[in-house]
Amino acid sequence: MTVNRQITLAARPAGLPKPPDFALVEAPVPQPGDGEVLSRVVYLSVDPYMRGRMSGVRSYADPVNLGEVIVGGTVSKVIESRHPRFVPGDYAVGMLGWQEYGVAPGDQLRKIDPKLAPLSTALGVLGMPGLTAYFGLLEVGKPQPGDTVIVSGAAGAVGSIAGQIAKVKGCRVVGIAGTDTKVEWLTRELRFDAAFNYKTSGDYHGTLSELCPRGVDVYFDNVGGAITDAVFRLINPRARIAICGQISQYNLERPEMGPRLLTQILVRTARVEGFLVFQFASRYKEGIEQMARWLGEGKLHYREEFAEGLENAPAAFIGMLSGANMGKQLVKVSEP
Amino acid sequence: MTVNRQITLAARPAGLPKPPDFALVEAPVPQPGDGEVLSRVVYLSVDPYMRGRMSGVRSYADPVNLGEVIVGGTVSKVIESRHPRFVPGDYAVGMLGWQEYGVAPGDQLRKIDPKLAPLSTALGVLGMPGLTAYFGLLEVGKPQPGDTVIVSGAAGAVGSIAGQIAKVKGCRVVGIAGTDTKVEWLTRELRFDAAFNYKTSGDYHGTLSELCPRGVDVYFDNVGGAITDAVFRLINPRARIAICGQISQYNLERPEMGPRLLTQILVRTARVEGFLVFQFASRYKEGIEQMARWLGEGKLHYREEFAEGLENAPAAFIGMLSGANMGKQLVKVSEP
Repeated sequence: MTVNRQITLAARPAGLPKPPDFALVEAPVPQPGDGEVLSRVVYLSVDPYMRGRMSGVRSYADPVNLGEVIVGGTVSKVIESRHPRFVPGDYAVGMLGWQEYGVAPGDQLRKIDPKLAPLSTALGVLGMPGLTAYFGLLEVGKPQPGDTVIVSGAAGAVGSIAGQIAKVKGCRVVGIAGTDTKVEWLTRELRFDAAFNYKTSGDYHGTLSELCPRGVDVYFDNVGGAITDAVFRLINPRARIAICGQISQYNLERPEMGPRLLTQILVRTARVEGFLVFQFASRYKEGIEQMARWLGEGKLHYREEFAEGLENAPAAFIGMLSGANMGKQLVKVSEP
Repeated sequence: MTVNRQITLAARPAGLPKPPDFALVEAPVPQPGDGEVLSRVVYLSVDPYMRGRMSGVRSYADPVNLGEVIVGGTVSKVIESRHPRFVPGDYAVGMLGWQEYGVAPGDQLRKIDPKLAPLSTALGVLGMPGLTAYFGLLEVGKPQPGDTVIVSGAAGAVGSIAGQIAKVKGCRVVGIAGTDTKVEWLTRELRFDAAFNYKTSGDYHGTLSELCPRGVDVYFDNVGGAITDAVFRLINPRARIAICGQISQYNLERPEMGPRLLTQILVRTARVEGFLVFQFASRYKEGIEQMARWLGEGKLHYREEFAEGLENAPAAFIGMLSGANMGKQLVKVSEP
């Protein structure tokens, strides 16, 4: 344990990131300072928001600089602790990034109990993606029983959970995804009322009109672009549109033009709200406990896909941006 | 008093309405039925929303059909009443439309006291436009002291009131209008902190950046289009955008394309909400009383322009859509 392999940003991606935008480098394993914890990364999360951090544009968070380790959520096993709350052997969720070992202040790590749920769920259904779905759907979308709820990016880590929570709340749920296998998963296993494959539908608006005969009350948007344009044409009075992601736009080299949506928002007196999970940080505990209950009751199902080895994180990330995964995409960096 | 002159919709306008889209016709003066009131129109309001009703597309209200009297708010004097709450000589605000005499159920009229404020204000600062500004700014925009508030269409009936209410609430208020005279009125008489003439500004974004050095917290939008695109580039985290109107879009013959705004809404975690004054119907009394107090305290100023004679309603309406008026545009149909 002397070498720490890391993946750093080698170049700012133009369009969809490519393998040469990343570099695999070696560094010494860092030493924990006072109040800090050194741990070994077990699982690494790849998420759409990371694409924004690679662009060098400041948004709600600082960008990753060239040569820096890529940011990312991790589950790790404590090796050495100089923080009173952690001892070697503990598991923790944190933001160590794309590397094999990381040091972080103990206050920025949350201990997880491997007996309560599989460790990896702390990066998925019981972690940031699950909380994003939970608070975004419930607090921004505000679904009511009988509402029609559309989820785009429905087979992703966030969308698949958001749609199931809408089902728990008594809504008619329609998912939009990019393969027939995903559509089948959504309707058969996750019990969405309907779903369709936008890559084989020639007419988003026509398909959505058929699947949403009473219009759309809540739209949980992960993708933006032409799919979202089609949904806007169907929104009901007082519709709520939760903007969780706009993945169709992240790899564009210049901003895309589209039909103006504000007149529709006006005549439907709709509400469109962008949100970040951090807004709900004071309520994470509530969200995780509720989701764990639903998991236990069989009301919530999840799916995880694993790439093996740190060196495969870039490919897993690029695949996730392209819609290759179903459910949550993770990288297994080492054995628990 | 046997002939009732009316203005009807002769043709659905293509683009900006033209005089031949309207017809001046004569009809018998109608008779009130049980519970109804016949009254003579004194003032007629022309408002941007009427353009939508002329398009034959159902939105939140039914369109005006060809040959029908144009809809519109009115102040009228009661001539004959078969409703217990009204007697001849009373003044009432209602929706009699573009005609000299009208019958309406007494329950759809609100009596006004000509001693409390000029009659015409019931169609302006103390009527629908004022209430639109009041509830739209306060309930949708939710301004906080120190916020920067931008108002587009700032010299119109709604915008001029919205901006002044934001001043009452301790905000920095920046107005956007279409003539230098309007800009001067906004900054000198209405005490906006800044305003600019978009028709002579070659660079909306540059001008707005200078006038809003701390970004934009609340945007009260009456116009849409390129002005709104420029404002979106400056919104602060958790900004509130109240969509009151989109007048730049109403006369387009085909929907305009524009830069996609949802990514900006996401990264700023902004809220964009379309609203109609009717949503706040249960609170009109509160709004009117508060505005009347501010008027009495000199915190609120208003301006009205009058066209003379029913036959000039179409020209007043077309002028208002083109930005010819400053403050509230009315038509004086008869002497009080």
